Amino acid sequence: MNDFILTLEDIGNRSVQNIETLFAQANGALGVRASLPIKAKESTPGIFLNAFYESHDIVYGENAYGYAKQHQTMVNLFDLRSIELSIDDVSEFLLVDQSVALDMKKGILKETYLYQTKEGKTIEYRLESFTSHFDRTVYAQKIDLKALNFSGEVEVSKKAQKISTKQGEDFDPRIKDASVELIQTGNKYTAPNSGLSFYTHFDSYDKKQYVEEGQTLSFTQLYQISREAEFTSPSYEELEAKQIAIFADFWAISDIEIDGDRHLQKGIRFNLYHLFNSAGRDGHSNFCAKGLTGEGYEGHYFWDTEMYLLPFFIYTQPEIAKSLLSYRVNILPKAQARAKELGFKGALFAWRTINGEETSAYYPAGTAQVHINADIAFAFELYEKVTGDTAFIDENCELIFETARFWLDYGFMSKRGFEIHEVTGPDEYTALVNNNYYTNKMAQNHLYYAARLAKKLKKYEKEAVEWFDSAEKMYIGFDQALQITQQDDSFLMKEPWDFEHTPKDRYPLLLHFHPMKIYKHQVLKQADTILAHMLFDTPIEQIARDFDFYEPLTTHDSSLSKAIYGVVASKLGRSELAYRFFKEAAIMDLEDFQGNASHGIHAANMGGSWLGLIYGFAGLSVENGEVTTKNHLPKEIKSLKFTVTIRGVKQQLVIDSYKK
Amino acid sequence: MNDFILTLEDIGNRSVQNIETLFAQANGALGVRASLPIKAKESTPGIFLNAFYESHDIVYGENAYGYAKQHQTMVNLFDLRSIELSIDDVSEFLLVDQSVALDMKKGILKETYLYQTKEGKTIEYRLESFTSHFDRTVYAQKIDLKALNFSGEVEVSKKAQKISTKQGEDFDPRIKDASVELIQTGNKYTAPNSGLSFYTHFDSYDKKQYVEEGQTLSFTQLYQISREAEFTSPSYEELEAKQIAIFADFWAISDIEIDGDRHLQKGIRFNLYHLFNSAGRDGHSNFCAKGLTGEGYEGHYFWDTEMYLLPFFIYTQPEIAKSLLSYRVNILPKAQARAKELGFKGALFAWRTINGEETSAYYPAGTAQVHINADIAFAFELYEKVTGDTAFIDENCELIFETARFWLDYGFMSKRGFEIHEVTGPDEYTALVNNNYYTNKMAQNHLYYAARLAKKLKKYEKEAVEWFDSAEKMYIGFDQALQITQQDDSFLMKEPWDFEHTPKDRYPLLLHFHPMKIYKHQVLKQADTILAHMLFDTPIEQIARDFDFYEPLTTHDSSLSKAIYGVVASKLGRSELAYRFFKEAAIMDLEDFQGNASHGIHAANMGGSWLGLIYGFAGLSVENGEVTTKNHLPKEIKSLKFTVTIRGVKQQLVIDSYKK
Repeated sequence: MNDFILTLEDIGNRSVQNIETLFAQANGALGVRASLPIKAKESTPGIFLNAFYESHDIVYGENAYGYAKQHQTMVNLFDLRSIELSIDDVSEFLLVDQSVALDMKKGILKETYLYQTKEGKTIEYRLESFTSHFDRTVYAQKIDLKALNFSGEVEVSKKAQKISTKQGEDFDPRIKDASVELIQTGNKYTAPNSGLSFYTHFDSYDKKQYVEEGQTLSFTQLYQISREAEFTSPSYEELEAKQIAIFADFWAISDIEIDGDRHLQKGIRFNLYHLFNSAGRDGHSNFCAKGLTGEGYEGHYFWDTEMYLLPFFIYTQPEIAKSLLSYRVNILPKAQARAKELGFKGALFAWRTINGEETSAYYPAGTAQVHINADIAFAFELYEKVTGDTAFIDENCELIFETARFWLDYGFMSKRGFEIHEVTGPDEYTALVNNNYYTNKMAQNHLYYAARLAKKLKKYEKEAVEWFDSAEKMYIGFDQALQITQQDDSFLMKEPWDFEHTPKDRYPLLLHFHPMKIYKHQVLKQADTILAHMLFDTPIEQIARDFDFYEPLTTHDSSLSKAIYGVVASKLGRSELAYRFFKEAAIMDLEDFQGNASHGIHAANMGGSWLGLIYGFAGLSVENGEVTTKNHLPKEIKSLKFTVTIRGVKQQLVIDSYKK
Repeated sequence: MNDFILTLEDIGNRSVQNIETLFAQANGALGVRASLPIKAKESTPGIFLNAFYESHDIVYGENAYGYAKQHQTMVNLFDLRSIELSIDDVSEFLLVDQSVALDMKKGILKETYLYQTKEGKTIEYRLESFTSHFDRTVYAQKIDLKALNFSGEVEVSKKAQKISTKQGEDFDPRIKDASVELIQTGNKYTAPNSGLSFYTHFDSYDKKQYVEEGQTLSFTQLYQISREAEFTSPSYEELEAKQIAIFADFWAISDIEIDGDRHLQKGIRFNLYHLFNSAGRDGHSNFCAKGLTGEGYEGHYFWDTEMYLLPFFIYTQPEIAKSLLSYRVNILPKAQARAKELGFKGALFAWRTINGEETSAYYPAGTAQVHINADIAFAFELYEKVTGDTAFIDENCELIFETARFWLDYGFMSKRGFEIHEVTGPDEYTALVNNNYYTNKMAQNHLYYAARLAKKLKKYEKEAVEWFDSAEKMYIGFDQALQITQQDDSFLMKEPWDFEHTPKDRYPLLLHFHPMKIYKHQVLKQADTILAHMLFDTPIEQIARDFDFYEPLTTHDSSLSKAIYGVVASKLGRSELAYRFFKEAAIMDLEDFQGNASHGIHAANMGGSWLGLIYGFAGLSVENGEVTTKNHLPKEIKSLKFTVTIRGVKQQLVIDSYKK
């Protein structure tokens, strides 16, 4: 058994759409779902170009001032994998066998399909393919067709085809139709509303020939898609060699070796593989909530990038981290315009977006999550701390300042301190509350950071005093009687959710209960106060009390939840519990625990599984360029071996249960 | 000057659309806007049939469980007023003079238009018309056309025409397109989605003839529209005589005579006239927010009926009141289904609806206004108290019980008492809060009423104990330091709105600021705590403190606000202030103070102006069949004379400043 090879035996749900997601390939620009070579009803092929979207007006049942105006939907471009095949003019086939082997070490997918006619003529379809990390315009395929038990006329046609399917069901609010009628002019395609274009350079293959039993037809195809009109013409072999080399480099500095659990080992590599694949590299694209593997969440970028994905990149792939942060710098003007439109100073980043404009059509669980401003600042700070790349921060300091200004205007000073009202924290089962603990803590950290930065750069020194003062006086709610950190001003006053009488099939709650019913109860979708406890130093006894209070109220209906609870359980020394949470996060998509991996991977959770290992079991942190670890290994894991890059220096770390 | 005749001189805004609304006629079933006889671009003709709507799916930018599923939009049916005219084959005319006289005493509208060709040939178009209160299917017109300064060929064609215009602008969330393509089969018209039908019986007129200078062409037309297929064939003269008799009866028992201000006298009669005209009479229709005079709010029924309109009907037209309450009885099954869908026991009435199903597409200012349950119960209780019609209440007691059950499930018992969370009170500039004072007080009153009723009828006696107990323990928030009633748990903690830096053109705030910005501030759209103070006995010093606190925070952006502040100012003995509020309410549409009377009258405010006079200046109340009054007349009003019907007995009351 090779822990870098993922096969169908490794996955819990072998539905066609699930396979298409899990075995999808991507290179940060292009993403390709592993759809069936011969079209099938249940198949949902997909080729996505990161940041390529179509826009259309959002229709509201009842509109109001300042609502997001346009949807942005990542377009499903083509089907580049399907083949038209006939044997002696018979073109109906039964798929009698399928084997798939994703070689994560090399970044190459190897598939074999046996197709059979009614008469029993069987053809073997072998495909090796990859989205090139060397030339990010390329999806490369090498095809072998072998006549297993017949001789006859074989006709093969393989070319790019239009997409005509849609993932998901009408009701699910998390997925939208991504098929769009593009305007074609030669090899240029334009989305009519967004005006965005791309160019293609496609090989095609179309032949009819007599094939002897046992004979193999072989050919390669390169499909190129790019925002630029110019293409180079690389060879399959050259790209394949580069691909293997690039992946070798990747694993050398980003792998985590787990001794003790081979399924977990493969699970974590699967996660790192997808993280490396789907991250935008050009400063104008970012990391879609579902990577480049499916249509879920319309290819939008959320706070997931900063709070769940960037730690992995910052510690192991700082260049990618820098590119993802540059994206925020590039959309800062949109964030400034948004704050102004809403009547506030500074900048407010969009809750969900591709081009920087707010596209969340439900503000209580969208725009109201203003914590995104502080999340972004937090990631900039972490990047600086780990990489030592102070120049990047200094150059882009206006982002930190403008987002800090927003807090000063959105919040206000009262007798109780600096308060921030009418926000939604990470927990989307509680909305539009006052003084959400996570938000206030994050804003406080942000304001301190902005004040330090301004002082260092000798900029806005008068404002910096206000930022510091507001941070110092930040209101933090605490319930003296319960000795519990208040998630917000009203949370502890709410009616407890009746978990006892909520059958399992009523989860996730959001698909079965009206927001009013959910919001009025003590029930959490995901880590909220506990997420803040992962990030900040708080007396461990307090974290324990809060954990014991909030965890039983958490449904984990969000895929962003379990990994965080796992890290904090490690922090509390509850290794058994931490392992349980970690395991569910680490193999969430492999086992399809959320039930919707078919719509795309849960990228944030994949980043969360890295946090679970590195922040959790290894207890990693960095202060002043010094790495410290704490050994929180559960009994199931004998050792962890991984590399981090601190201020340009690669350090291999081993956490070993024998040395605990 | 006759205070029953309304002319163009009496109104503040003489735009075409404003005139169409103010001089509109209706009979509870049919409503007809006073549109121009010869079509003009700015004209928006309208014929509405109460409760006749088309439905279509509500599209949400982001959907969620339990959202309202369908729009219901009152249909603008025909243009029954326009005429096609030519003189010697010239059919372009200039409108050179228009006079309009609404005889409110008789319920008849008299109009005269002078139309002129380019050559100066002038024709006088005189129209007397009414929507019959005797035969509610009929819109009757008597037309005289006089050749003023020419002899020639006059061609006249007058028939029902399709509607092709839409009121209002795209952005305004308060108005939707009401023109619908109906399916016609003979004289039967069907709205394709709702499946509702109506029948027509239309006269038409089409003639070309030579007319001598000074000669008059006269004809009458009856247009009949009905949900039933059968029509009677009344004569114009017969219907006119009945109309005059019916209006004489109406004024005899519903008029208010004001001595001291003729403009106000006319204003209040104008309001009573429209109230009488637009109220549904058949138990299946109700009172649209804009009456039957325009497309605003899509012809929907709100809590306006119970809290603003029913007092007038209960005290002066109890049969109409009974019909409006019967509508709620008829849609109770829909309210039960809605509560169940949301996951609660009992019944929850729709915030806005025609057929009983929720059609509010923005739940924070829709479904969350659960106080509508208690508002309806309050109206039933008032009806019983004033009319003594206990049989009606006993027969329909399930409505009171089912809506009470909802409170027990939606609220919960905590250490603080019985709490009701996640509601929106009357003030729509504050949403999704806990323990809104108005809601809790109204729910308390409702639960007491339900408990008394159950005890009397010996039904649900065990539940009745719980209802009583929850009412007794109802949590009422009070700020000890400020000595102010808390509008809700968080209101007094919010940041004050910056009124000083809000220019006048930024009102109403809802059209210029995002809900998040509005909700997080201390700012009110309308009376909230103060509305509760109008309804319940509270120590007068407390009312005064609350009034002085909340009134300066109130924008009165809702037309439901000023009348209530006026009544409470009277209660406080602040007659001058009361008069100022009352006056703005009483002539709100005549002077177009809200700026959108063109979309239809503000019916609730019209009912509010009755409250201002009768609850406010006359201090009327009834206990145990006994009327009491308190003389709160302001100096501008010398006396008030009006009639109320208490337990079937008409009582004329005079409030006289000399006897103060």
